[in-house]
Amino acid sequence: SKASILSKFEFPSSTHSIQSVTFNCERIIDEREKVTLHGWIDKKPKKISKNLIFVMFRDFNGDISQLVLNLDDMNTTDNNELFSLVKSAQIEEPVSVSGYIQNRLSPQKTSSIKDTDKDNAKVKDNQSHIDNIKKWDLKITDFQVLNKSTILPSQLLNLKKSSNNYPPGYRYLQLRSERYQYFIKKRGQIAKIVRNFLTNDENQFTEIETPFLFKSTPEGAKEFLVPTRNKNRFYALPQSPQQYKQLLMASGFHRYFQIVKCFRDEDLRADRQPEFTQIDLEMGFANHNDIQLIIQNLINEIFQKSNLDNKLYIPNLDNYSEMNEFVNKNENKNKNENENENENENENEKKLDAFAFPKLSYEKALSSYGIDKPDLRYSLNFINLNQFSFVQQTESSNFPIFEVCILKKDQLETNNENEDPFTLSKQIYVDSNYKYRKPFIFEINTQSDVDNLLLKFEKTGQVKFNDKENLSKFLNLEIGDTIAGSTRAEFTYENPTPLGRFRQLVIENHPNCWKRKLINNNHKVSEQPDLNKVFIATWLVDFPLFSPTELDETVLINKHKYPSYDFNSLQSTHHPFTMVNLDDYELMKTEPLKVKGDHYDIVINGVEVGGGSRRVHDPILQDYIFKKILKIKNSQELFGHLISAFENGCPPHAGLAIGFDRLCAMLLGTKSIRDVIAFPKTMNGTDPVVGSPSSVPDDRLEPYWIKNIVENEKKN
Amino acid sequence: SKASILSKFEFPSSTHSIQSVTFNCERIIDEREKVTLHGWIDKKPKKISKNLIFVMFRDFNGDISQLVLNLDDMNTTDNNELFSLVKSAQIEEPVSVSGYIQNRLSPQKTSSIKDTDKDNAKVKDNQSHIDNIKKWDLKITDFQVLNKSTILPSQLLNLKKSSNNYPPGYRYLQLRSERYQYFIKKRGQIAKIVRNFLTNDENQFTEIETPFLFKSTPEGAKEFLVPTRNKNRFYALPQSPQQYKQLLMASGFHRYFQIVKCFRDEDLRADRQPEFTQIDLEMGFANHNDIQLIIQNLINEIFQKSNLDNKLYIPNLDNYSEMNEFVNKNENKNKNENENENENENENEKKLDAFAFPKLSYEKALSSYGIDKPDLRYSLNFINLNQFSFVQQTESSNFPIFEVCILKKDQLETNNENEDPFTLSKQIYVDSNYKYRKPFIFEINTQSDVDNLLLKFEKTGQVKFNDKENLSKFLNLEIGDTIAGSTRAEFTYENPTPLGRFRQLVIENHPNCWKRKLINNNHKVSEQPDLNKVFIATWLVDFPLFSPTELDETVLINKHKYPSYDFNSLQSTHHPFTMVNLDDYELMKTEPLKVKGDHYDIVINGVEVGGGSRRVHDPILQDYIFKKILKIKNSQELFGHLISAFENGCPPHAGLAIGFDRLCAMLLGTKSIRDVIAFPKTMNGTDPVVGSPSSVPDDRLEPYWIKNIVENEKKN
Repeated sequence: SKASILSKFEFPSSTHSIQSVTFNCERIIDEREKVTLHGWIDKKPKKISKNLIFVMFRDFNGDISQLVLNLDDMNTTDNNELFSLVKSAQIEEPVSVSGYIQNRLSPQKTSSIKDTDKDNAKVKDNQSHIDNIKKWDLKITDFQVLNKSTILPSQLLNLKKSSNNYPPGYRYLQLRSERYQYFIKKRGQIAKIVRNFLTNDENQFTEIETPFLFKSTPEGAKEFLVPTRNKNRFYALPQSPQQYKQLLMASGFHRYFQIVKCFRDEDLRADRQPEFTQIDLEMGFANHNDIQLIIQNLINEIFQKSNLDNKLYIPNLDNYSEMNEFVNKNENKNKNENENENENENENEKKLDAFAFPKLSYEKALSSYGIDKPDLRYSLNFINLNQFSFVQQTESSNFPIFEVCILKKDQLETNNENEDPFTLSKQIYVDSNYKYRKPFIFEINTQSDVDNLLLKFEKTGQVKFNDKENLSKFLNLEIGDTIAGSTRAEFTYENPTPLGRFRQLVIENHPNCWKRKLINNNHKVSEQPDLNKVFIATWLVDFPLFSPTELDETVLINKHKYPSYDFNSLQSTHHPFTMVNLDDYELMKTEPLKVKGDHYDIVINGVEVGGGSRRVHDPILQDYIFKKILKIKNSQELFGHLISAFENGCPPHAGLAIGFDRLCAMLLGTKSIRDVIAFPKTMNGTDPVVGSPSSVPDDRLEPYWIKNIVENEKKN
Repeated sequence: SKASILSKFEFPSSTHSIQSVTFNCERIIDEREKVTLHGWIDKKPKKISKNLIFVMFRDFNGDISQLVLNLDDMNTTDNNELFSLVKSAQIEEPVSVSGYIQNRLSPQKTSSIKDTDKDNAKVKDNQSHIDNIKKWDLKITDFQVLNKSTILPSQLLNLKKSSNNYPPGYRYLQLRSERYQYFIKKRGQIAKIVRNFLTNDENQFTEIETPFLFKSTPEGAKEFLVPTRNKNRFYALPQSPQQYKQLLMASGFHRYFQIVKCFRDEDLRADRQPEFTQIDLEMGFANHNDIQLIIQNLINEIFQKSNLDNKLYIPNLDNYSEMNEFVNKNENKNKNENENENENENENEKKLDAFAFPKLSYEKALSSYGIDKPDLRYSLNFINLNQFSFVQQTESSNFPIFEVCILKKDQLETNNENEDPFTLSKQIYVDSNYKYRKPFIFEINTQSDVDNLLLKFEKTGQVKFNDKENLSKFLNLEIGDTIAGSTRAEFTYENPTPLGRFRQLVIENHPNCWKRKLINNNHKVSEQPDLNKVFIATWLVDFPLFSPTELDETVLINKHKYPSYDFNSLQSTHHPFTMVNLDDYELMKTEPLKVKGDHYDIVINGVEVGGGSRRVHDPILQDYIFKKILKIKNSQELFGHLISAFENGCPPHAGLAIGFDRLCAMLLGTKSIRDVIAFPKTMNGTDPVVGSPSSVPDDRLEPYWIKNIVENEKKN
């Protein structure tokens, strides 16, 4: 009927938010200002007595306040309709409510109203929920339900409790919660910080949109295709704007950036999405120093301005046991405004200008941590035992290094109340948690374990020691320690190594153990900082420019699995546009696998936050890489446009891309990027809210010159 | 060789831009500061004498300066290598150049150098190009070519001259020009203005990214499909984030916006692209007033902050011959800072708060201008002649209105030097410029033309007048006028009408005639403002919510073409989520074609810049529209997610989207949106730079469960 429609569409504008009422509470009460709020019923209204209802109300900021309808206070007597309207309002219904603000009704105050013990209990119950929230109530004079909600309170309660298993079809209900409102709004704020920093007067980047309807490339296996109305002509959705941004450099744009969606059609792991967002940037007439300077300052800006209480630490790479907290001048300023204790601000500013994330080489990262994205919040690193004249006994001569990782008992943090003896998580022993072989892991529970350890390693058939006495002294094992050992290649493409994966699993399952000591700005060791608020950043550099193709078949030696490689088929470790380190230029023709790339990853807390490189801008060198090294047959057809652009005055350039979803998830302290994406896809690529992807009728395909094939037409 | 590679990759950082040298010129010369610039050779270096070369150099801001290499000035004698390096540099090669700044070498000064008449001429020639640019030269001490350019200077000159026919494969060379650098950078700045305005403390919009991999919908014919690795499961690229943004409202986000790419697979006209960018926004607990207020302020903000010298005028809809310029308080402030003439600033501020674009109804727009996006910079409007008891004689009783448009001779602007007599462009008479019938157009060249005009109209067989005497007086035609007349429906779905199309063609071909008088802030008529800098904004409102389906066959009556409609098959005029005007609610069941929608277009200078609406948030009403009015059979499958969201406490909401490419093109004074897109697609949807779309091998299709079909498998 028209009346019921009008009640949904004709409503007063809001005059306040809960926050603005709280801020101006005294004045509003004094002046008896009428207030209109918009929001949702947060809990089923409670009828306290026949004349009194309490309603928990949530506004669009996620703030919660209490509405009160008290017929005894009202001048007119004919308020039965209003009373029954408020009483019957359902949880999660959007409402417009008007009235006057009063100081919070305490149970004592409400007891002047005719009450029973039961009523009083209800008041108390209701009260305890909001005692920490607002100190005022809104006395209802007008109340309008703007839409219905059919979800049952009990259903919703269950949904809210199960934060990880929230039915994804109800994403919009989940997003209404304070947690997700905060995540998504904060993500927007972080994007704004990034844009304002990059486009400020000093940095002068220009945001330029690049096409989404792009061309299929050799890495094509992971690209989504988009059919067109021309026969056998497809666009592809870009995995990144890499080629277009290089064309923008050829187009004379000095500093380009874009916060942009990218697409990758691959198996989805916990932290992957078929569409994801990058902060993408590129600079003309630039090298890695220019990029790294900008990015360091950008990351710092994000930490300073995002108000998340996160702290960025800079490791001293000569001695990883000491970390220096990076202290921001703005933060100092704020602190000193009241205290006025620190006079040498200029000196601090000078230090800041010299601030740089340290650089860790790929080789050092792999030998120390067994992975190219180590989580440096943990002190665990590896000891190469080859100095003790180790002779390896595996038949696989490609894996001659033997190294160990020791979990010292004295670095355990046993904060659990029962003081149970520490036991290592079973996850660390599960074969399937390792891609290839698992390290040999020995717990040292007795003196006999200490004495027989080296023998146990030798019994695995993988390793033999020739100076056991000195080695034992060197290892200095104690009862309560655990030691793991494994083989790896001299220059390893296995990433993580078995021991690197072991380290990952240990950290994942024992996040409060083996924490690195952190030094704050006053050179004092920080007191047990919350590791969720500690961020340690490094550059990973000196990656191999090319890697051998990993073969599908694994090599089995004595039941131990090793990866195998085709060293005659080279791939770009990152992408074919990465420049060679100039020092290695002459190795390109003779030993391409020894060539390092001018590539740099930014790694924070075990997460590869971003990566970039100086690019090739010389057409002959780029052509050589396509044809002679990567052996791409139709390189002219695929990449001719880039070569042409290089031939027409393209300047030197370098760039980088940051995974924006991952960055936001990390800063917000959540493990899943799904938490910072409004409508993420599930593990199988579907959006359960709208039901995509979906089938389309055959006649929709015909204009695109394609048709569905059936099961038996498929080869695999 | 390594040396030639090093010369391309190892170069000093730039110390300045041309702009920063100009700004600090005196100090740099005084202190003999060494300067390094990066940029391109803008013109082939000119050897003036055997010891002197002049080079025109352009940096990455598009600024131009002159480099000088003068061996006579140099201390060392062995500079032959440098001399030949500079001399052989080619146009458009990127270079790094270092040296010292000196005041501009004038021909007089250089004449102290051994010169001939010929040399002198060269100097003068070169000089004239830069006299208006910079007053300094850079004396080269170091010069490094950072990449080659193979394009010939003559080729490039031709390319630069033909701005409209620039070979699209060379887009990167075109983008290097000052014009395109300006366009693309300005677009970035406008995006920044929009973002900063919407996210400021007052407006508090959150930018939220919505998925690109969406679901196919009934409007699907224009959607690009994206095959997935599941059989007959397709994503579709969204034509707009409409449904996701409504889901965001159900998710409790109060104010959402996004600057976002959208996709539409349709025939491309001059101002259409298969991928385009929208400023998309939506507000919860809001109606059209809330949206319109934000948008008016946003548009105003863009005009004030984009520094393009554009002026926004607000028409007085009661009397279109008067336009009031909208004067911004900031602009006033700037002007008054020095002049201090205007004391009543507070009064101005009050006026501003009350500022609103006027509202023009669809019906009024169609009857006055024959189109729903009239260009109000021109005074031409239509006169309905039915008051003179006109009796139409066409057999098409659906088109009973006869109206005329008079081009008065006294509003001609004959600024041409020859003072040729004005003649109307032939384009206006070309049949194919009209979709259906062309109006009858009569030029009044003699008194006999005046006297016989009504007879001429009657002779067309379309119209008959019953009070010719009064009508003649009313029309008041003079020699030199032109009159056009045509029929239309009482409520017209023909948009533009024949006369509306006539008005468009007249404006397009005679942009300096029939200009509306504009009134500035001091109530004086502006002196011939440059119409390219004049912007007149209105809201278009009261569109029909539903329209009959237009049939393909046209109806021919007396050789005049009319459109025909199926009044039993209704479509949404905009989209099926648009709310009905509440006044018309009860007509939904009885006469849906009479229902107006709560939709609003923003129209500036004949361009539909954006459009929006209040949305349906009532699940029953939305379901009724899907099923009973639009007769969508599988509405649950296609739109069930929206209905479910509405059933679970979705608040009332309204929103709008602005075409960002078009807005930028309009503000920058260019007719083609291609000019403000870095890598636009051509009319047939290809990107000639990278060569997309392209063919892919069959084995790339198989994982997606599709295959190409061949010609004879296609039905159409």
